[in-house]
Amino acid sequence: MHLLNQRAPELQVSTWLNSKTPLSLEALRGKVVVLHSFQMLCPGCVQHGLPQAGAIHELFDSEEVQVIGLHSVFEHHSVMNEAALRAFIAEYRIKFPVAIDRSADSDPIPMTMRSYKLQGTPSTVIIDQSGDVRMIHFGQISDLRLGSIIGRIIAEPRTQQSAAASASAQNFTGANSAKCDDQGCKVF
Amino acid sequence: MHLLNQRAPELQVSTWLNSKTPLSLEALRGKVVVLHSFQMLCPGCVQHGLPQAGAIHELFDSEEVQVIGLHSVFEHHSVMNEAALRAFIAEYRIKFPVAIDRSADSDPIPMTMRSYKLQGTPSTVIIDQSGDVRMIHFGQISDLRLGSIIGRIIAEPRTQQSAAASASAQNFTGANSAKCDDQGCKVF
Amino acid sequence: MHLLNQRAPELQVSTWLNSKTPLSLEALRGKVVVLHSFQMLCPGCVQHGLPQAGAIHELFDSEEVQVIGLHSVFEHHSVMNEAALRAFIAEYRIKFPVAIDRSADSDPIPMTMRSYKLQGTPSTVIIDQSGDVRMIHFGQISDLRLGSIIGRIIAEPRTQQSAAASASAQNFTGANSAKCDDQGCKVF
Amino acid sequence: MHLLNQRAPELQVSTWLNSKTPLSLEALRGKVVVLHSFQMLCPGCVQHGLPQAGAIHELFDSEEVQVIGLHSVFEHHSVMNEAALRAFIAEYRIKFPVAIDRSADSDPIPMTMRSYKLQGTPSTVIIDQSGDVRMIHFGQISDLRLGSIIGRIIAEPRTQQSAAASASAQNFTGANSAKCDDQGCKVF
Repeated sequence: MHLLNQRAPELQVSTWLNSKTPLSLEALRGKVVVLHSFQMLCPGCVQHGLPQAGAIHELFDSEEVQVIGLHSVFEHHSVMNEAALRAFIAEYRIKFPVAIDRSADSDPIPMTMRSYKLQGTPSTVIIDQSGDVRMIHFGQISDLRLGSIIGRIIAEPRTQQSAAASASAQNFTGANSAKCDDQGCKVF
Repeated sequence: MHLLNQRAPELQVSTWLNSKTPLSLEALRGKVVVLHSFQMLCPGCVQHGLPQAGAIHELFDSEEVQVIGLHSVFEHHSVMNEAALRAFIAEYRIKFPVAIDRSADSDPIPMTMRSYKLQGTPSTVIIDQSGDVRMIHFGQISDLRLGSIIGRIIAEPRTQQSAAASASAQNFTGANSAKCDDQGCKVF
Repeated sequence: MHLLNQRAPELQVSTWLNSKTPLSLEALRGKVVVLHSFQMLCPGCVQHGLPQAGAIHELFDSEEVQVIGLHSVFEHHSVMNEAALRAFIAEYRIKFPVAIDRSADSDPIPMTMRSYKLQGTPSTVIIDQSGDVRMIHFGQISDLRLGSIIGRIIAEPRTQQSAAASASAQNFTGANSAKCDDQGCKVF
Repeated sequence: MHLLNQRAPELQVSTWLNSKTPLSLEALRGKVVVLHSFQMLCPGCVQHGLPQAGAIHELFDSEEVQVIGLHSVFEHHSVMNEAALRAFIAEYRIKFPVAIDRSADSDPIPMTMRSYKLQGTPSTVIIDQSGDVRMIHFGQISDLRLGSIIGRIIAEPRTQQSAAASASAQNFTGANSAKCDDQGCKVF
């Protein structure tokens, strides 16, 4: 699959919320990064993805795991703007850093979402301590499974990384019309 | 309690969504009306109130019960506008009529919310077939209890109405600062 | 459907638990009776039916609604005996009266279950204030729907009863082999 | 804590269900063993513990993780017997091997439960590939946390084991009276 076991592309961010300074994958080497791509009006993100990301943020030692929310708007751009996102984060009491995915000039899909070829929202990306992509998952994933994958990556010997196996990745397929169901909102 | 067993004030609405024609309480005499006051960025509304309103809309015969969503924005006015609400309704697949509560000139609280003295969102108002308010409830209410109240009002003899007992109402107390928790978003 | 809108057959009970004195439908005239037929080893009963019966017991005024558990064992008879049921009731903190359905000599199906022709467990039977059966439902039923049915029966004029409509009943079809799924345990 | 990072005492079992041959911790060296101690009439076990154990059994490769149910009866001994357990396992569709903890002559607490000094049911014990106890947890534990602990143990270098840290263990304190709540059934 695209990017699996390869170097994770750097995040392309217009604004950081819930973080005093901008974060970068490069500066986070040595930690496992859980990147949660969402849209504030995506029901699957609100019901499952964001609470799961919040639970990961609560559970793991911040020296071992960094959770980052990535607001990747690919539909309803005019209403899911920065002011709306700020209100959403306040009302939903989201505590982890949230990056606004940088929009491209003539592409409805923002730049980080495009570079990771995410299928839609919610998507969960896991990046290991060496900076390699280890999982890209679109839709719901059980807490048990996601916990076990993060646990494995934390514990595996570093020398073993880059050779490591991965789990549950899917391919992205072009186009732009958006549609949401219980699993999430897809870009087709 | 304010309004209990009194004539329900007419809805003051700027725009109707999911309805070809404007609705009015007067025109709905003869049906039980379940008015669900919400804000699209209120977590308690999204998690509990709106799914419950949707289940009522599904369960009851439309000749007996009319569900109406009332978008009563009293905070974050600039981002919970009509365009944002339209996107929200589409993504969350809300099927029942939704009224945008008419804003007042110099009051952050919209006009219908003010006339019913609602405490915040979500609030559920039940109006009987005679047009009288029978319940005003702020926050979560169990499906079993709400179902039983609606069932009673449907079945009671009409002559008995206006004399009827009610359930679980609370008083509203002034002011404007907003705050959300698992129960809902309050106006203090 | 069998029994619908007809006089409810009297309960046939070998032992009452959680009740100082035996109850009878005759003595309960004037109240709505919610009869919850279950087996202690039926997953659908433990997960849905019994918590729902407990919530009804909690919610309604005991002058209006009487909840009765009916332990209708039609499989695994040797292990779902009175001593086991007593332990179950203690551990699950069941507070409403529970009747042990009287076993028949040469029939694996106990006598009350047979007279109501219940399809399996959980089954919910609603009997109105006049003593007529108003609903027999096998499997899960939503809180909203069950609450609304109870509410209607409480409120309807008594003269109207016996002519009343009902909801969601199914026919029973013979035989004895038992099988459980998420909905309940069936007698085929 | 008692036993933490020490060799796990061998299981003392009177009967194995769902397993053609008896299992032993010694024969399972090389796998992570998740031992789930339960009682069939313990609400916390039925609602949370056993479904979680089933999900672990489903998720992990049987070459890496072995789930074992341990029926550790310390109350209501006469009704939680082998025949009742067999009916329970059939109705709840439990698929993983279940061991009946061997009862002791003059001790209400069975022998494996005693040797691990478990506080009550449900208890989850994790034993690593080297046969050392890595976690003993009484009551509920989140899927995310349990998954992460299993994942870590699977992935950690074997040489590191026996020196490893652990999580969430509690001390056992004597006596025999039993009491259940939402968390589980305790031996005090």
